[in-house]
Amino acid sequence: MKQTVKDYIRTIADFPHEGIMFRDVTTLFADARGFRMAIDQLLHPYAGERIDKVVGLEARGFILGGAIAHQLTRGFVPIRKKGKLPGQTVSQAYKLEYGEAIMEIHEDALMAGERVLIVDDLLATGGTCEAGIKLCERLGAEVIGCAFVVDLPELGGRALLEKLGMNVHVLCEFEGA
Amino acid sequence: MKQTVKDYIRTIADFPHEGIMFRDVTTLFADARGFRMAIDQLLHPYAGERIDKVVGLEARGFILGGAIAHQLTRGFVPIRKKGKLPGQTVSQAYKLEYGEAIMEIHEDALMAGERVLIVDDLLATGGTCEAGIKLCERLGAEVIGCAFVVDLPELGGRALLEKLGMNVHVLCEFEGA
Repeated sequence: MKQTVKDYIRTIADFPHEGIMFRDVTTLFADARGFRMAIDQLLHPYAGERIDKVVGLEARGFILGGAIAHQLTRGFVPIRKKGKLPGQTVSQAYKLEYGEAIMEIHEDALMAGERVLIVDDLLATGGTCEAGIKLCERLGAEVIGCAFVVDLPELGGRALLEKLGMNVHVLCEFEGA
Repeated sequence: MKQTVKDYIRTIADFPHEGIMFRDVTTLFADARGFRMAIDQLLHPYAGERIDKVVGLEARGFILGGAIAHQLTRGFVPIRKKGKLPGQTVSQAYKLEYGEAIMEIHEDALMAGERVLIVDDLLATGGTCEAGIKLCERLGAEVIGCAFVVDLPELGGRALLEKLGMNVHVLCEFEGA
């Protein structure tokens, strides 16, 4: 019997590369009870707080972000990989294990002073989320929190984001990246 | 003053290629009222119907599908481009303007007899959705409807899906592909 959000998450060895233990949240999302628990628990720390927009990181952050924005009756804003957004964008590079990648946001997607919550399924090195925070801040918005289903503490993402002054909320941790 | 879902959708010329009028739903999703109206209206035809799982097509269908699954208190299942899902998958090729692409679903994501709703932002030729329907049916599920924010009737997707016996629900149409 599954009791917690973590119980619904499946681990797949050697994806996308040999040696990686991939934490697969699709089994959590596919389960009615699991998905409901995840969305509800992601929101608990923010009860009563003003959140103007929910920002989701491509692509699994879209699933969570859509649900959370709907629950809060707020708008949803995607942060996407380079070249996917059709309008005028602001770009932010971040480091990968080898090389770098670029995330983008529509330049008119957030207004100065708006309070935003950033959501994604998994916090690893924190590089993608750091780029997301910078994009929101470059539009003048205030990131009031970053919420994730899974944290991989060995990869240091939480420590990185907290060093930036961020409020970080995670539902569970897995050891072994 | 914006009155309808269609009023919140922005058109961007020449994206991703010259001559394309891109119907951009991000301005709809970013607006609290627009996003709420879209999710509510997508669900109206299915009030009182049994829906076991919500299936979203990568990537904008994830935003809508996450919200709809949460609203219905049901599980969410992604259909993704080839190579993105970590577990054992079933694959389905479909035609693009030039060449073909492949969509995948986890082979254990749906059970035989489950009733599913497929959601995406935009119905063009219907090729992606047709592949999605086949994937659901190959797992033994029954697709009880396909819901989209935008239909481009000139591209024939609605006619194609209806010829397959599908119940198609769209919130608005745009002329000119």
